[in-house]
Amino acid sequence: MQYQKILNAIAFEASKTENRGVVASYIPELSNIDDGKFGIALLDEHGDFFASGDTEESFSIQSISKVLTLSLAFKLIGDDLWERVDVEPSGDPFNHLSLLEHENGIPRNPLINAGALVVADILVSHLRHPKQEFLEYIRKIAGDTSIDYDLKVAGSEKKTGFKNYAAAYLIKSYGNLENDVEDVLDFYFHQCALSMSCHQLVKVFYMFANRGKCLEHNPYLTLAQVKRINAIMLTCGFYDEAGEFAFEVGLPGKSGVGGGIVALLPEKFCVATWSPGLNLKGNSKLGMEALEKLTTKTGLSIF
Amino acid sequence: MQYQKILNAIAFEASKTENRGVVASYIPELSNIDDGKFGIALLDEHGDFFASGDTEESFSIQSISKVLTLSLAFKLIGDDLWERVDVEPSGDPFNHLSLLEHENGIPRNPLINAGALVVADILVSHLRHPKQEFLEYIRKIAGDTSIDYDLKVAGSEKKTGFKNYAAAYLIKSYGNLENDVEDVLDFYFHQCALSMSCHQLVKVFYMFANRGKCLEHNPYLTLAQVKRINAIMLTCGFYDEAGEFAFEVGLPGKSGVGGGIVALLPEKFCVATWSPGLNLKGNSKLGMEALEKLTTKTGLSIF
Amino acid sequence: MQYQKILNAIAFEASKTENRGVVASYIPELSNIDDGKFGIALLDEHGDFFASGDTEESFSIQSISKVLTLSLAFKLIGDDLWERVDVEPSGDPFNHLSLLEHENGIPRNPLINAGALVVADILVSHLRHPKQEFLEYIRKIAGDTSIDYDLKVAGSEKKTGFKNYAAAYLIKSYGNLENDVEDVLDFYFHQCALSMSCHQLVKVFYMFANRGKCLEHNPYLTLAQVKRINAIMLTCGFYDEAGEFAFEVGLPGKSGVGGGIVALLPEKFCVATWSPGLNLKGNSKLGMEALEKLTTKTGLSIF
Amino acid sequence: MQYQKILNAIAFEASKTENRGVVASYIPELSNIDDGKFGIALLDEHGDFFASGDTEESFSIQSISKVLTLSLAFKLIGDDLWERVDVEPSGDPFNHLSLLEHENGIPRNPLINAGALVVADILVSHLRHPKQEFLEYIRKIAGDTSIDYDLKVAGSEKKTGFKNYAAAYLIKSYGNLENDVEDVLDFYFHQCALSMSCHQLVKVFYMFANRGKCLEHNPYLTLAQVKRINAIMLTCGFYDEAGEFAFEVGLPGKSGVGGGIVALLPEKFCVATWSPGLNLKGNSKLGMEALEKLTTKTGLSIF
Repeated sequence: MQYQKILNAIAFEASKTENRGVVASYIPELSNIDDGKFGIALLDEHGDFFASGDTEESFSIQSISKVLTLSLAFKLIGDDLWERVDVEPSGDPFNHLSLLEHENGIPRNPLINAGALVVADILVSHLRHPKQEFLEYIRKIAGDTSIDYDLKVAGSEKKTGFKNYAAAYLIKSYGNLENDVEDVLDFYFHQCALSMSCHQLVKVFYMFANRGKCLEHNPYLTLAQVKRINAIMLTCGFYDEAGEFAFEVGLPGKSGVGGGIVALLPEKFCVATWSPGLNLKGNSKLGMEALEKLTTKTGLSIF
Repeated sequence: MQYQKILNAIAFEASKTENRGVVASYIPELSNIDDGKFGIALLDEHGDFFASGDTEESFSIQSISKVLTLSLAFKLIGDDLWERVDVEPSGDPFNHLSLLEHENGIPRNPLINAGALVVADILVSHLRHPKQEFLEYIRKIAGDTSIDYDLKVAGSEKKTGFKNYAAAYLIKSYGNLENDVEDVLDFYFHQCALSMSCHQLVKVFYMFANRGKCLEHNPYLTLAQVKRINAIMLTCGFYDEAGEFAFEVGLPGKSGVGGGIVALLPEKFCVATWSPGLNLKGNSKLGMEALEKLTTKTGLSIF
Repeated sequence: MQYQKILNAIAFEASKTENRGVVASYIPELSNIDDGKFGIALLDEHGDFFASGDTEESFSIQSISKVLTLSLAFKLIGDDLWERVDVEPSGDPFNHLSLLEHENGIPRNPLINAGALVVADILVSHLRHPKQEFLEYIRKIAGDTSIDYDLKVAGSEKKTGFKNYAAAYLIKSYGNLENDVEDVLDFYFHQCALSMSCHQLVKVFYMFANRGKCLEHNPYLTLAQVKRINAIMLTCGFYDEAGEFAFEVGLPGKSGVGGGIVALLPEKFCVATWSPGLNLKGNSKLGMEALEKLTTKTGLSIF
Repeated sequence: MQYQKILNAIAFEASKTENRGVVASYIPELSNIDDGKFGIALLDEHGDFFASGDTEESFSIQSISKVLTLSLAFKLIGDDLWERVDVEPSGDPFNHLSLLEHENGIPRNPLINAGALVVADILVSHLRHPKQEFLEYIRKIAGDTSIDYDLKVAGSEKKTGFKNYAAAYLIKSYGNLENDVEDVLDFYFHQCALSMSCHQLVKVFYMFANRGKCLEHNPYLTLAQVKRINAIMLTCGFYDEAGEFAFEVGLPGKSGVGGGIVALLPEKFCVATWSPGLNLKGNSKLGMEALEKLTTKTGLSIF
């Protein structure tokens, strides 16, 4: 595969695109990003790295972090996890809280906010220093100690994240949150505020394409666990655009409102894109288009 | 009307009833109540008082307080109130939070929890010492300075009221809560923890049957305001049993999970009942039956 | 009461109103109506008749007919009726079908379409010639044999009433419709196509203000039945504007998309208005305003 | 791969399983099936056939037919299809009608009943003899002229399919059904009543694993079309158990209430199972277990 040539072509087309979507504005720290940014990075099955554009610049990974906390919670407590969170697509763009009410506090899947809060609660229960230990877990997988939280972003979300407070208290009212809401949200706002570049993202997500092993061949997850997380990413990774992404791109993946997307083809490659402008569904506009081009040009997808 | 005779008959029948419903157990302070209690008190248009049973014993008025905070907020800000809360029945037994999501943070009416939180927010904004001033308002209307908050109940609700926290944060996320959630809930948990007897309740609610004037003939509300609050009680006062209550009893009224119910016939009477056991919809079982008997025996209802 | 003077004033103000709402257009027969029409008619407790404007002209009573079929079904089968339809406000502007799904085919109340279909089914089961016998029932109460169905309207609704077909089939799927959907809908489309004037409407609805007896003093309903129907009108008679109507007008009533509204104050009067332009909620705009003025000017309401 | 050995082991374990789920009973023709039946058949990438158990016996394929009508409609009108039906998981076990109301008559995906009705409408519009031409399409792909409709099943569904009538009329009320409801449902009830064996199913679905070409190497769909249908099967093929199936099995597939399931691994194999007992979610209990074992034993899945 001539990945480098393909990434260059995609980055070139992105640079020419006028309609770049709208940068998320709900917290000031996100809204200040230059919407001209675009990067795409790829690690193939041999560990070879390809990149084009702004792939070394860090951005707020936001919801992409939900896959990483999920992997750590799954590692820690195994299938007990599924007693506290389901694995079905939410199918509902707008009211995850009403779903919680219908389903007695069991979130539909770990990649919507409600589910990620339950996962965060599990980490807060099982780790002595949750924020620090989660950060070390990421750094170790990536082999990169420069990865860190953006504390300004975390603080900003804390001040405005009323809907996440609402979700956390609702889950707690159903008995599905063990710790204090404040503690869970403090962890949650930090995980979302992880700051990473496309390059760092593919190094961390490489394990999901590589049967659970990181670039250094250290095992972090079993093959069965990796397959399950990949299945969840495919069916639930893009909110109410999950079907669209499976349909147009055909890869397990996860997006964040910071404009990042990671996706992977098992045993073939892991890819990350970044472009801050979002489409109407809240996913990076150019990132979605880039990944669609990647699977079209390479002819590679899980389907 | 031979009210005394009728109340005696109702209290006698209540004393013989075996199925008394189930006492609310979500906070220990409520669950310890003796379910054998029953009282019914009535004030007629001449100010004459009739009572039978446990009508001098105080209990937690809980949601009945929502009518009282509504009356004070209405008095304070007039029809501006209706820009922040609607007046439609909620029609939904179980998921007031999803309604909030559908309706962008405008609660359906002031007598569901979400609406009462917005009303509480208004009082917190407009009163210098909200808890104290609201209590004085009640005491003055009743002409009874012994009315007070039950601080143990208020504290207990604070510790377990996660669903109210969820609702408050959700409303705040839509910009319909001006004050800090903690401040609004502190007031809200106190208002619900008002401790009153049937006798005290009819003295306070007398103004809704008496064109806005209390027993001492002091005006608290205009006739138009009283009519509007009565209309809201009729259509929204009994959760998803509002239609049933209008249908079976035919009076504006309001119930609380403490087992109290107040109801009134404009320019005729105001009545309060207390029996701690609740029916499946969360309204006092014997209280509902008592009021049904009262309108049947007297032939008096608004319809 | 100087009803005539008040009605004249209301009709005069209506004639000056520029914003008259929008005439229903979903069937051509309704959309052709002149939106300049306005009438208001009132029968007081003594049987005295007052009128102003176009009160002798017939129009399509549409959903107002639901109260009349309800009264006949209630008369025929008594309280068994409530096993097939509930009495709670629907609280939901837009999706009565989803409510049916949540509640296993038991419509929320007899005044929404789904509930009226169940009532129609009862009449189809219990009457030998349903359309003819229902018409005779109305004619007899009114003492007016000129009341009739508008067959063009009935035929037109049959051709376009897909949503009513959907509701009927859904109810049937839950086993709450005994007869063929086609038969029930044929009856239903006829009842909605009853053509009556304001004058005729007050003659028929007089019995709901007169303890169950028509103008000729013949009893049609018991007092208990009348009170229950009045309670249902108050809580459910105006779709998702029921609370607003109770709040602004304070009378039991029912509207139809043909622009008619009837309302009543028990033992005082029965009133009907007609103005074809509707507000955003589907109720006659000038009619709503007229009734609000009536209760304000007379100071009479149930609250 | 030693497929034959694996299928034998799976069939042997199935024969020992006591809890076989519950046979669908909503129409008599389905409820009479012997729940002891079990078959599993597989076609690999070389066209080699493997089978164990009752793989030659025909059963009602029911919802599995939705993938086949989808493929024909997609072939006929291309991407115009997606203007009339979406590709998102429904996420809702129980009320597809309410979703239709929320989304203005655009079904969430072509594999729920509402979506399949829109697809059926497209075929009724574009085919001169819809039932006959669809049947010939299936027979030609399979190279098997013995495949046919079970007319008793089709007739039986017509008599009891009230919920499908409701869905069709609701879609029509939104203008998303071109033909008469009766014509669309006649076609729909026939497609669901297709009677096929596991052997015949893998012959037809082989094209989805073989880049759009049937066993005889004739092209029916483009590669892009196949990938899109596979993506839809993965995200939407198992109602509210779609996530669970992706999670546990990890293959695109589709189930039917007749107890059949088909699934496939692109460019590797196509598999069909049959066991009439269903789990609580309406999918074949033993079939689900068999496919889980297949992907575990072979280590093959798309993730």
